[in-house]
Amino acid sequence: MRNIKLVLEYDGTNYHGWQIQPNLPTIQGTVEDALTRLTNSPVQIIGAGRTDSGVHAEGQVANFHTDVQMPIAAFQKGLNAMLPRDIVVCEAVEVPADFHARFSATSRRYRYTILNRAYPTALSRHRSYFYPAAIDVSQMDALCQRLVGRRDFASFQKTGSDRLDAVCEVYEARCWKTNEHVYVEIEADAFLRGMVRAIVGTVLKYQQCDDAAAQLRRIVEAKDRGTAGPAVPAHGLSLIHVTYPSS
Amino acid sequence: MRNIKLVLEYDGTNYHGWQIQPNLPTIQGTVEDALTRLTNSPVQIIGAGRTDSGVHAEGQVANFHTDVQMPIAAFQKGLNAMLPRDIVVCEAVEVPADFHARFSATSRRYRYTILNRAYPTALSRHRSYFYPAAIDVSQMDALCQRLVGRRDFASFQKTGSDRLDAVCEVYEARCWKTNEHVYVEIEADAFLRGMVRAIVGTVLKYQQCDDAAAQLRRIVEAKDRGTAGPAVPAHGLSLIHVTYPSS
Repeated sequence: MRNIKLVLEYDGTNYHGWQIQPNLPTIQGTVEDALTRLTNSPVQIIGAGRTDSGVHAEGQVANFHTDVQMPIAAFQKGLNAMLPRDIVVCEAVEVPADFHARFSATSRRYRYTILNRAYPTALSRHRSYFYPAAIDVSQMDALCQRLVGRRDFASFQKTGSDRLDAVCEVYEARCWKTNEHVYVEIEADAFLRGMVRAIVGTVLKYQQCDDAAAQLRRIVEAKDRGTAGPAVPAHGLSLIHVTYPSS
Repeated sequence: MRNIKLVLEYDGTNYHGWQIQPNLPTIQGTVEDALTRLTNSPVQIIGAGRTDSGVHAEGQVANFHTDVQMPIAAFQKGLNAMLPRDIVVCEAVEVPADFHARFSATSRRYRYTILNRAYPTALSRHRSYFYPAAIDVSQMDALCQRLVGRRDFASFQKTGSDRLDAVCEVYEARCWKTNEHVYVEIEADAFLRGMVRAIVGTVLKYQQCDDAAAQLRRIVEAKDRGTAGPAVPAHGLSLIHVTYPSS
């Protein structure tokens, strides 16, 4: 069987996240539907990251297996013709049989976008979190960098998650500002549910405090979601890249 | 009476343009509704540019008169609380009695955004025109610059327009590329209906031709909309700035 890798861009606004759910529009369900129609046989896809409801992607990766002997370019063109306009296939390539979008991935990179000005935005309202209060970007950046490394991120895991092992390795975490936008980008080997939004909410809560670094250390060490700050909204978040050994 | 100037950002996707029309959602109608509720008296607003259906704005300007003695900051806050999220008041300032958003304006600047890559976009689908074919940006830019100056733009006026005098002065017209986006920006004292979209459609049509400059001259001289290229779609267009003598 052929193994095909897709790189996907999507606007998560109108979806209940990546993972398929009965009777609800999801990214996985919508792509599987289109693939099933395109190939005339049921297709299941595997995604690299299970983005939550309202979260976007510029570089989600998925793979699926098929016997259909269609040229690879026809998968991309056919899917883009069939998919609703808020999901786009940026790339389709044939990969070795053992490629698995989720388990082969060595890291994921998420970006969180904050609009930091006095009034909201009409044009990017689905893509940025409006936060009019003061932000100390260098403090935010310093706090983010303290999270780099391998540690237990249980304090930033959505309550009710079933994952027992909360250890992740954060490779990079930084914050910067461009005009009226503040960005937080985090790359890690894996992410817990709600992790990026809890981290951003926490550094945003403490960035104006003198003892922010100590507070962050206390929160990480507590391994208790109740100690961290509130999660920022989903619509500011985007999965921007997934890395594989060969990419 | 007080005269108040508003700077507006809006996502034109769900509106039938700026100008008020019975039983159809328009930007003017929606802002007037909100102002009427806010001030508890009927308010009419004057806009600097009548953007078409689906066209956006980052810097539309409007003004209105009122007797209401509300602090100026309360107009901005109150309107942003009442308006739907796809219309935002960026600024509200009190201006002299003779300020008129349309007649006092000395120039308007529009930007057209083209997505020039092999596959469409999910995230910016309402804000850029997907054009996968080759674009010679320096040729586009050279053609745009030939339009600078005071001349009759009848060839770029929407047929059926009632304006008799088609003379406008283009102060600047340029084209540039950033990653996968090609932008065309035009500033003029005034614009005819459909003018930016007809100009962009025309330079896009001829940019790969050896005799593009001669074709453009022929089109301008014909003063006939039938000679120009097809208009590009509304959703790539945004009114980005309106200039006044004092601003």
